[in-house]
Amino acid sequence: MDPKLLEQIVSQVLAAIPNVEQAEKGIPVGVSNRHIHLSAEHIETLFGSGHTLTKEKDLKQVGEFAAKETVTLVGPKGVMRGVRVLGPVRKFTQLEISRTDGFSLGVIPPLRDSGKIQGSPGIVLVGPKGAVTLTEGVICAARHIHMQEADARQLKVADGDRVTVQVNGARGGSFGNVLVRVHPDFRLEFHIDTDEANAAELKNGDMVTLCQVGEK
Amino acid sequence: MDPKLLEQIVSQVLAAIPNVEQAEKGIPVGVSNRHIHLSAEHIETLFGSGHTLTKEKDLKQVGEFAAKETVTLVGPKGVMRGVRVLGPVRKFTQLEISRTDGFSLGVIPPLRDSGKIQGSPGIVLVGPKGAVTLTEGVICAARHIHMQEADARQLKVADGDRVTVQVNGARGGSFGNVLVRVHPDFRLEFHIDTDEANAAELKNGDMVTLCQVGEK
Repeated sequence: MDPKLLEQIVSQVLAAIPNVEQAEKGIPVGVSNRHIHLSAEHIETLFGSGHTLTKEKDLKQVGEFAAKETVTLVGPKGVMRGVRVLGPVRKFTQLEISRTDGFSLGVIPPLRDSGKIQGSPGIVLVGPKGAVTLTEGVICAARHIHMQEADARQLKVADGDRVTVQVNGARGGSFGNVLVRVHPDFRLEFHIDTDEANAAELKNGDMVTLCQVGEK
Repeated sequence: MDPKLLEQIVSQVLAAIPNVEQAEKGIPVGVSNRHIHLSAEHIETLFGSGHTLTKEKDLKQVGEFAAKETVTLVGPKGVMRGVRVLGPVRKFTQLEISRTDGFSLGVIPPLRDSGKIQGSPGIVLVGPKGAVTLTEGVICAARHIHMQEADARQLKVADGDRVTVQVNGARGGSFGNVLVRVHPDFRLEFHIDTDEANAAELKNGDMVTLCQVGEK
């Protein structure tokens, strides 16, 4: 066979094969501790008129950051200090806590995809300059994977899919009903809360794999 | 066909079929909150000379009970009051806490099967009559299923097997590496800690199913 033709065939075959190396490396885990997204109005009530959030560090998802600001949660059964505010500012305030946090505070949040806060319970937020009596917005975030279009193509999934993630190790197993979220600003990351991380002995940066596509 | 013979055949066929109804019902969940098993010596130090445990209520496992007595845990980072003592008295003191509890207390317990406390960390226990500086015995209990021989035969597993348990629901998935423990005093129950229960939205009495036999 003509060496040039052979080279051309090899090159075309390689181009057609998905990036096996990256797929084998899997999806990095991001563990979400309790945190809050605040509206501009609530930022002013809690931290003072005209206040804007100060960035402490960038998060992996483009544009998202941990702010220097923290709030205190006051529930019917308990108080939690130092709860991190995440920026940028949002249209609606949303507090994301674990089931364990909920039992400590005396608030049972529904399991929800981010942004779907309708009918969720409220809580009292306290900052250095004032308090907000939240009437809704406390959720337990449903596990999800952030990714870009290229990741979605490689993993053979689409935005809105519910997939199953496989975890190895002493507390291994699988997480079902994992929402796939695709956006150009997203970076490949499997987001779980602290209960899920502790139950599976996972920490930030650990790798998991997609094991099958479930129902939408 | 002779009605008597038919009846005999039906009866023999039914007898040969495993108890499908029970198998379909699955295995009931038992969620273990943080608790402690105490040695006789430690009971006396914490609650006074000659003290014996007072039963508050029987647990599902035969002979096991929740005592009226509670202790306070004092770790490098936190304090937890009202931690339940489980009876009967044991040869060695063993404290079982979740990963979440461990972070609050500042103690990172290894994941262990009950009884395997060698090399695990200690903590300070405080009772109404004194304190014990435990040098080892703090573990994060590995998930396990209690059962009798009849259950084991029906589920086609044996004592010491590591199996996988399937969970349905919004936070469904599977728990791998579940230890099977068979004993005449045991009652069928899948024991998990509060992190595992919260991660999978399971509570006492919920039903799970055995989905496959893993490696021993």
